[in-house]
Amino acid sequence: MKLVTLSTGSGPRVGVVDAEAGTVRDVSDLLPAGSGMLEVIEGWAELGPLLAERTGDLPARPLDPAEVLAPIPIPRRDIFCVGKNYREHVVEFSRSGYDTPDRSEAVPEHPVLFTKATTAVTGPYADIDPHHGVTSEVDYEAELAVIIGRGGRGITREQAFDHVWGYTIVNDVTARDLQRAHKQWMLGKSLDTHCPMGPYAVTVDEVPDVTALVVESFVNGERRQSASVKDLIFDIPDLIATLSAGITLLPGDIIATGTPAGVGIGFDPPKFLTSGDVVEVAITGLGAQRSRVA
Amino acid sequence: MKLVTLSTGSGPRVGVVDAEAGTVRDVSDLLPAGSGMLEVIEGWAELGPLLAERTGDLPARPLDPAEVLAPIPIPRRDIFCVGKNYREHVVEFSRSGYDTPDRSEAVPEHPVLFTKATTAVTGPYADIDPHHGVTSEVDYEAELAVIIGRGGRGITREQAFDHVWGYTIVNDVTARDLQRAHKQWMLGKSLDTHCPMGPYAVTVDEVPDVTALVVESFVNGERRQSASVKDLIFDIPDLIATLSAGITLLPGDIIATGTPAGVGIGFDPPKFLTSGDVVEVAITGLGAQRSRVA
Repeated sequence: MKLVTLSTGSGPRVGVVDAEAGTVRDVSDLLPAGSGMLEVIEGWAELGPLLAERTGDLPARPLDPAEVLAPIPIPRRDIFCVGKNYREHVVEFSRSGYDTPDRSEAVPEHPVLFTKATTAVTGPYADIDPHHGVTSEVDYEAELAVIIGRGGRGITREQAFDHVWGYTIVNDVTARDLQRAHKQWMLGKSLDTHCPMGPYAVTVDEVPDVTALVVESFVNGERRQSASVKDLIFDIPDLIATLSAGITLLPGDIIATGTPAGVGIGFDPPKFLTSGDVVEVAITGLGAQRSRVA
Repeated sequence: MKLVTLSTGSGPRVGVVDAEAGTVRDVSDLLPAGSGMLEVIEGWAELGPLLAERTGDLPARPLDPAEVLAPIPIPRRDIFCVGKNYREHVVEFSRSGYDTPDRSEAVPEHPVLFTKATTAVTGPYADIDPHHGVTSEVDYEAELAVIIGRGGRGITREQAFDHVWGYTIVNDVTARDLQRAHKQWMLGKSLDTHCPMGPYAVTVDEVPDVTALVVESFVNGERRQSASVKDLIFDIPDLIATLSAGITLLPGDIIATGTPAGVGIGFDPPKFLTSGDVVEVAITGLGAQRSRVA
């Protein structure tokens, strides 16, 4: 199932999308009053079967990109992110000089984990704010994001997929100058609008083999990144096991799994985003984002 | 005003404390139904005067430490934290060998900003989980935390205190081995129970000069840390201006401002916490925490 959060005059509503037909069914009337995507995920054991059974009875209408918000517009907490999780990206990041003071082409021995602030989240077709005066080095990072369903702590690699509710796309937009200057990455990763998310929250049953998905980005139509999820250094079970060893994961938690080679600082000279640029991020079966830099 | 969040069989309630008398008044019946501390902070323009006027009419009873939760038990998002923000601590951290790969005794040019996960928050008298098998190097960090009242972006140094609702105490408990191994600090800072908070949320009017506050910690009665807030490298206006330049701050956001010298890794050999240790953290006028390592 592909779910979306829809912007309406009376607050966000939940929709189920038929991506091939380009249509959406507003299913909020089937849900407990006031439910958003987080409540749908948390109540999925009951709501999943309900939606599967009854969505088809509802009227379908064309999906207007202008009404599509991030699937989880206000996450319960900051987005977990993983740095340096594709080999070729580790190399380009090191060579760029931005990976200071570490600057190593070696693959990390342990996942490099940081967060993006909740307020960075924006819709999949919304503008990216260039934050002139705050940063002059805005970069894109196409990523597969995992959405946690059942929470828990001490989740093993073997149990990990039992806790995955689904997947979405995240562009881990990064202010490289801030990332470097502040040493810890949170600030450079967290500027408002620097986490385009969606368009869809796609349930696991639609993704029989997540390692087969291909993560791609395009800037002004030019392909910049393209890699398979099987190339992750720390795979999804690794990430869930590592995070949950000491942190209780919650339903709706989002884990952005890292970006492949081909980001702006991978070029010499770097290709930073500038006003008017259009960034597209696409993942097999998860749809595509299209963000304009304002 | 000193506010607390009280644990009750029917969910958390808000109390106003008379710290000298050791009493509390449950004020939840004065508040809109379902209000917790976040709603009190967000509605402070109206609720502050209401509580000031009517709290005295309510019955006072002895405050039982066992009923005191963290003032904000479930923050709206992760806690903003600042690393290396007292000079002597920068030096001890560098000499410890844990500040890798950076390892510099130089004062940071820009604030080092990271987060602690919401699920790390625990009460001011609750046990600290040593997470045996996940870490063997648990350390304490006494910190003054700022609580944001009015949110906003682009807050200047001059405007900063207009956005501060109040203060509380945070023990930025840290798994040093994870902090070092994962390079970015989030994981090592975010284990469950590794953010004892409170006891009180103290409104700004009770703190005429925040720089005069003294931050102290004790382990098994031995004083380990003691420094004045005026010794911060990046002061509260700096931190608010830096964070809010590109991140919209929200009411109830928590900023832990950094820890002074005297943490466990400041000793040679390091003095890590072990089961049975009791850590106390006290700040002038903000009360004291007392946490036992389980």
